[in-house]
Amino acid sequence: MTGRENRFRMSHLKHEIRRGAYADSIVLMQLQSALAKLDGVEDAGVVMATPANRELLAANGLEPRGDLAVGPDDLLIVVRAESASAAEAALAEVDRLMKRDAESGTSTYRPKSLRSALVSHPDARWVLVSVPGRYAAGVAREAVAARRHVFLYSDNVSIDDEVELKRRAVGEGVLVMGPDCGTATIGGVGLGFANRVRRGPIGIVAASGTGLQAVASRIDALGSGVSHALGTGGRDLSGAVGGATALQALDLLARDPETRVVVLVSKPPAPEVAAKVLAAARATGKPVVVALSGTMPPLDRVGYLHFASSLRRAADLAVELADGDGGGTSGTRATSAGGPGFVRGLFSGGTLALETTQALRFFLAPLASNLGVEGVAAHGEGSGHLILDLGADEFTVGRPHPMIDSDLRLRRLAQEASNPDVGVILLDLVLGDGSHSDPAAELEPAIRAALGKSGLTIGVLVVGTDSDPQDLSGQIERLEAAGAKVVRTTDELIALVVSTAGDALSTAEARPVPLEDLEAISCINVGLEHFHDSLAGQDLPVVHVDWRPPAGGKAKLQAILARMG
Amino acid sequence: MTGRENRFRMSHLKHEIRRGAYADSIVLMQLQSALAKLDGVEDAGVVMATPANRELLAANGLEPRGDLAVGPDDLLIVVRAESASAAEAALAEVDRLMKRDAESGTSTYRPKSLRSALVSHPDARWVLVSVPGRYAAGVAREAVAARRHVFLYSDNVSIDDEVELKRRAVGEGVLVMGPDCGTATIGGVGLGFANRVRRGPIGIVAASGTGLQAVASRIDALGSGVSHALGTGGRDLSGAVGGATALQALDLLARDPETRVVVLVSKPPAPEVAAKVLAAARATGKPVVVALSGTMPPLDRVGYLHFASSLRRAADLAVELADGDGGGTSGTRATSAGGPGFVRGLFSGGTLALETTQALRFFLAPLASNLGVEGVAAHGEGSGHLILDLGADEFTVGRPHPMIDSDLRLRRLAQEASNPDVGVILLDLVLGDGSHSDPAAELEPAIRAALGKSGLTIGVLVVGTDSDPQDLSGQIERLEAAGAKVVRTTDELIALVVSTAGDALSTAEARPVPLEDLEAISCINVGLEHFHDSLAGQDLPVVHVDWRPPAGGKAKLQAILARMG
Repeated sequence: MTGRENRFRMSHLKHEIRRGAYADSIVLMQLQSALAKLDGVEDAGVVMATPANRELLAANGLEPRGDLAVGPDDLLIVVRAESASAAEAALAEVDRLMKRDAESGTSTYRPKSLRSALVSHPDARWVLVSVPGRYAAGVAREAVAARRHVFLYSDNVSIDDEVELKRRAVGEGVLVMGPDCGTATIGGVGLGFANRVRRGPIGIVAASGTGLQAVASRIDALGSGVSHALGTGGRDLSGAVGGATALQALDLLARDPETRVVVLVSKPPAPEVAAKVLAAARATGKPVVVALSGTMPPLDRVGYLHFASSLRRAADLAVELADGDGGGTSGTRATSAGGPGFVRGLFSGGTLALETTQALRFFLAPLASNLGVEGVAAHGEGSGHLILDLGADEFTVGRPHPMIDSDLRLRRLAQEASNPDVGVILLDLVLGDGSHSDPAAELEPAIRAALGKSGLTIGVLVVGTDSDPQDLSGQIERLEAAGAKVVRTTDELIALVVSTAGDALSTAEARPVPLEDLEAISCINVGLEHFHDSLAGQDLPVVHVDWRPPAGGKAKLQAILARMG
Repeated sequence: MTGRENRFRMSHLKHEIRRGAYADSIVLMQLQSALAKLDGVEDAGVVMATPANRELLAANGLEPRGDLAVGPDDLLIVVRAESASAAEAALAEVDRLMKRDAESGTSTYRPKSLRSALVSHPDARWVLVSVPGRYAAGVAREAVAARRHVFLYSDNVSIDDEVELKRRAVGEGVLVMGPDCGTATIGGVGLGFANRVRRGPIGIVAASGTGLQAVASRIDALGSGVSHALGTGGRDLSGAVGGATALQALDLLARDPETRVVVLVSKPPAPEVAAKVLAAARATGKPVVVALSGTMPPLDRVGYLHFASSLRRAADLAVELADGDGGGTSGTRATSAGGPGFVRGLFSGGTLALETTQALRFFLAPLASNLGVEGVAAHGEGSGHLILDLGADEFTVGRPHPMIDSDLRLRRLAQEASNPDVGVILLDLVLGDGSHSDPAAELEPAIRAALGKSGLTIGVLVVGTDSDPQDLSGQIERLEAAGAKVVRTTDELIALVVSTAGDALSTAEARPVPLEDLEAISCINVGLEHFHDSLAGQDLPVVHVDWRPPAGGKAKLQAILARMG
């Protein structure tokens, strides 16, 4: 960047500011491209004068010198040319070039506002919003109030606006897909950026635009197809938004007879949201492939839930499940049993405790542990489910490891069993040289005593081999005779917890989204004309609103208007 | 806990303090158990008086009232009995009970210090250390200075001590396994807690005790076996320790002809350590199954590296690889090519950028991005490898998404290509409705120009279907004609980077650990007599050191002695 002054020393820079001038960003792109092609012009920039855009201009030798006193509402047009006259000539062309673009549009009637479009097109159940971020929430709010589904392409929308919009949408039984929702395929129609995929048995819910596109494209490449692919916006599974749209989408796909397998794609969700959304996924009663970018839980599947570490794997697995008999699509939806109390894990093995915690954080909330797992509260914070590594440093000063000394664990087991809020106790038993010579003998009476309490489940993960000195099968028999459920791997232990703990789904306040709204859709487009053209190109009934910012884009005036109602 | 006073109202509590009294923690456990069985005794506690242990006493109604003025070097013996006289009678038995335990030991000659054991047993190449944490580093240091391998069972050892110990060990060509190393199986002999597993073709490196045991046990259950299973201590892959022991262990297993497949188990490693250790794993030239608890990268494999999301899956995969022809065990170790420069990812798709970042953080350091991935620096911090989502909010105010508008990306591409430090540029190209109508036409000349620079590699991930309006195969042909390497999934893109970027292994200062030290081992045991018994039970030559804390366990006196050298 230090060579910039030299690199452009012989060039001439001219600029023009149009205050509060709104134009479709694609129109600006086309203007910039047209300016750059004019005689004698080396480069051109046409941007809304945000700090980021001005940095980009600077990086390309297009930043005018001096203090411009422009803001994000102002249009900044810069031309760098071989001569001052060429630069001036180019700037003089701006109006002509913009007019040419405008004329290339269609000449059909266009409503000037969403309100009039809703009146003139009462059957359009979908509103596509791609106006600049600061106007987007207002437009979307109007659409939701009119009980229309919103595909909210716009980004730079605040999370507070998103929370509020989705709260209203859930109450109205409509979807707000977004903000920053790049893609969806609804009843075969692509909204935003969408690949043309065969229709088929796989439904997609994605808090991730290109994640959805990558999965859908690969499903198509593998010869299968997509029923509906529903984007939710990237923040939908955050703690604040709570998975509002994902929950609606899962419910829709559960009811959709065409959908036999579901793929759920998201960036790492907030822990309490993960638990809620996975409970909803289980409640679909259909195989659900879950791809939580970057945070694969340490298990391949629990019942109908299958976990995939990558987008590719998610698509492969979904096609496999859809082609085969599936994980046993039942058609009947899993019941929401309501949890039978909190889980307590009392482990002697640190890694067994860790792996259990890493898996359970996707299913149980609130969850605490002394293992330092991201998204899991530290032991002692709050109440709820708890996993303890009793072999951690803080428990072993001057006392043997719990693999030798059961004392601490037996005491804690009795204490937890007497707590009426506890429903499931998890233990591990690690055999081998160096470990206690007969651990089951010590655990057996304690387990028997604990199970005296009705409703309690005790699961024991036994690690060992047939050659271990303790007699593996004898140890297992003894634990089972005491009433414990014995498993041999962590994933079996997780399955035990998940099947016992049931789902804690509460969607009482949600109004179901009508399934028929996903078929034969028609749209109102507010924002980029580009998307109107894309939809029209798919032979979809679509009306474009000739939208302009309220109050000519002046932020202060807008704020006053908003306060006036 | 509020009912404690009532619960024990009729009981009588008596205690005894023995200041600075050292005893093996298992001896304390046995004493406690013996006291609790005496007539009239309800419960007993025998602990070193740390705050954690005193809390445990309190939770069990065993905390004496009033201010005891005891510290962690003091032994606290508490008895709760039906009557004061029963409690007193029990305390009077303490010496007899402890003596009985001591007498049950063998009467063979026992050296009083590690120093004399090293003299009397010069062939013992291994030292097991299980003395209390605050003495452990000193004992281990003495062993390393004598060029012995250390199995450091003790926990509560500081990370500074660990770093220093391992630095010395690497220089001496010996292993320090631990601290807090629970298990290892070396040449068929189990150290610490170890399952008896069949010998076989699978080597294990584990920064996780029960992780190692779970994997080894399952390998045995599946009918395969283990060559050597080397624990490293749970902090080995932290940023401070830098994977010192894991790197030595991988090098050993690479040289070991019996080992055909390696399993690497660890809690989530520090990013720069992950890159180093995975480079070493690749350099083994053998299939390596990597299970990084809770942080599965979004890909199943890259070359010989296979990723597993769970301990179970790691064992299953290792057995599969060992049984089959493997991933093509070559015997020849991969060469360390030395990287050809930094990677720059210029993505239009946010999730594609995210998945690429999540995968590459295990292979490239330092890595930055604007995607908010844990362990990856924010864009702008430092220099090195960089992945950018050009569709992020900060780049799209007032300008179209890069899937429509290539301008920003083309400029950045030219800029990065002219940077001599950049060796690999990654792009994505997302087709479909709504996207640019012919993106390859815009990228082609830019790629062609960039590839003019010798040595540069450009990889393009193309997402799309055969039905997309842009003509998928035509787009791919055009990119390939320009010289780009085209892939269709993120994992292929990662494989491209990893194979291009090579390994940056520097183990120049390391002295190789002799492979023969892993066979027919003999041990010196310092600490818990329990482990002596366990090793003797495996018919291993082992000598037990009759260790006592220096200066009778007095912390201040010890510190003075340490300062005196």
